[in-house]
Amino acid sequence: MTSSSSRRKRLGEFEIIAKFFAPLASESGAFGLKDDVATLAHRSGQELVLKTDAIVEGVHFLSDDPADLVARKALRVNLSDLAAKGAEPVGYLLSLSINAKTGTPWIKRFAQGLAHDQKTFGLSLLGGDTTATPGPTTVSVTAIGWSPLGALPRRSGAKPGDLVFVSGRIGDAGAGLALLQEKSRAKGKSYTTLVSRYRLPEPRLALGRALRGIAHATIDVSDGLLADLGHIAETSKVRIAIKADAIPLSAAFVDKLGKKRRAIVHAATAGDDYEIAFTAPPSARDALKRAAAQTGTPVTEIGRVEGGKGVVLLDASGKRIPVKRAGYTHF
Amino acid sequence: MTSSSSRRKRLGEFEIIAKFFAPLASESGAFGLKDDVATLAHRSGQELVLKTDAIVEGVHFLSDDPADLVARKALRVNLSDLAAKGAEPVGYLLSLSINAKTGTPWIKRFAQGLAHDQKTFGLSLLGGDTTATPGPTTVSVTAIGWSPLGALPRRSGAKPGDLVFVSGRIGDAGAGLALLQEKSRAKGKSYTTLVSRYRLPEPRLALGRALRGIAHATIDVSDGLLADLGHIAETSKVRIAIKADAIPLSAAFVDKLGKKRRAIVHAATAGDDYEIAFTAPPSARDALKRAAAQTGTPVTEIGRVEGGKGVVLLDASGKRIPVKRAGYTHF
Repeated sequence: MTSSSSRRKRLGEFEIIAKFFAPLASESGAFGLKDDVATLAHRSGQELVLKTDAIVEGVHFLSDDPADLVARKALRVNLSDLAAKGAEPVGYLLSLSINAKTGTPWIKRFAQGLAHDQKTFGLSLLGGDTTATPGPTTVSVTAIGWSPLGALPRRSGAKPGDLVFVSGRIGDAGAGLALLQEKSRAKGKSYTTLVSRYRLPEPRLALGRALRGIAHATIDVSDGLLADLGHIAETSKVRIAIKADAIPLSAAFVDKLGKKRRAIVHAATAGDDYEIAFTAPPSARDALKRAAAQTGTPVTEIGRVEGGKGVVLLDASGKRIPVKRAGYTHF
Repeated sequence: MTSSSSRRKRLGEFEIIAKFFAPLASESGAFGLKDDVATLAHRSGQELVLKTDAIVEGVHFLSDDPADLVARKALRVNLSDLAAKGAEPVGYLLSLSINAKTGTPWIKRFAQGLAHDQKTFGLSLLGGDTTATPGPTTVSVTAIGWSPLGALPRRSGAKPGDLVFVSGRIGDAGAGLALLQEKSRAKGKSYTTLVSRYRLPEPRLALGRALRGIAHATIDVSDGLLADLGHIAETSKVRIAIKADAIPLSAAFVDKLGKKRRAIVHAATAGDDYEIAFTAPPSARDALKRAAAQTGTPVTEIGRVEGGKGVVLLDASGKRIPVKRAGYTHF
């Protein structure tokens, strides 16, 4: 190994782990982060659900984003995948490559963010790796949950005749990022709402569990609504038609970007929403209404599944709206 | 999300996943990387064993290290932890942040390295995340294995009166790194051996399983022999005394660095060995000989566990050898 940084006066690797991360390892199988590995006991009748996702400074979060929100976002983008599959999260492993110039206060605040969301979602840190990097800080999380054996809804389950639904509001996070990037001076309430939706997604865990046995196909919306529905269309071998006017927009979004066609296309392709998009048969409408009410999660019908392939965005007269790029890719 | 790189002519994120990584997802629960998550069915009478570790370009591997060896090293540093705990690896999740200037051939060769070691160790890729980064390439792996329920040897199990053992040879990888860093021109056979020991650790999986029920405390040697034995001493609340002359050195190591005190201290503190250090009672000597022979793994007795605390390195007359730094830390 080559040492990239060792002469600064600050806490060392083991001190950082002992002081900030060991207290987060509440599960007994994490051994207080004092062993090489963690263990996890089985839950009868359940299967393990796994997801890994990384966020990179300057790519998925901004250098001046607050450290506690960076930590919580890193957790939540993974929890959102578990949510879309109706899984119950129990813990996570953290691989943290911290830029060598980062001071201890940043790490402390980062750990406070983890502690906050561990409480919110009932999680334990199960294992971790902390290293210094000469490059941007990179936070890689592997989230672990449980799902009743065989109950996991797949991307491939959509059937012609299904309706298409989405939770929450679409486009807020993309609008928040745009505002941060243009360093908008006109802040106000809508600004705060949109920026916080970018910085702190809300994984729809309760709704995801309520969709078990109702939804035919589910996905979490991270790359962009149309791009992610495209994954369902591809793996299910169907065509998905979305009504542009039906896409749920927040008041804050409309306040900042309006609701003309261009704004709607931005919302449907910007990504970072971390909502659940799913298909279900028309007979499930009542069950879905109850699931939405019981979990306090808005659910909106936005389109339908047909024979064919691909995803199309339609205007009020059923005419196709051209979309240049369905969503975000990391390359 | 902000796009850090999108104008180069090369494969996109989804093409890279489909072409290079999806074929590695052999386990059915990985869904061919075509869903948000992976699932893993339970093995009766076993518990899950988890480990995450990242390697960073310029910190844990060198920019001109061959991509297939980088991939295999990223896997093996995690498998080594599973090995030290007697666990049987089944799969892994991969979070890959690739420097934006990296071309497709590098990624292709990286995936070939993964494929090679998946075959060697019987693994499946269970999930992944691929993203471009403006910084150094960072490879984060979460390895998953199984261990018979309750059989996992801990760092905390060492008892006064135990003997201390280590597998393989110590110091080769540290010497290999030193040779690479000084850009040595006198290469030859010893050079090749040491460099390859740095680039490609050998996780001692068979030995680790054979140590179940024999070893009192185990750890994988990654930060440095003395540093890692220090973790056993600390969590077991014992003192560990190591005989410098007993530390097993390879012919290649002695050829390049000699076997004087300074070379031995280098070997015992350099890290990256990925051998198993462990303690066991004197009554286990015969069982250990059999385990070593059956698994084709050298095992050497190097010291003993006493009451007290800390780790000491002793010369032939029992006098303490001063050691400035017991091992490597990442900060």
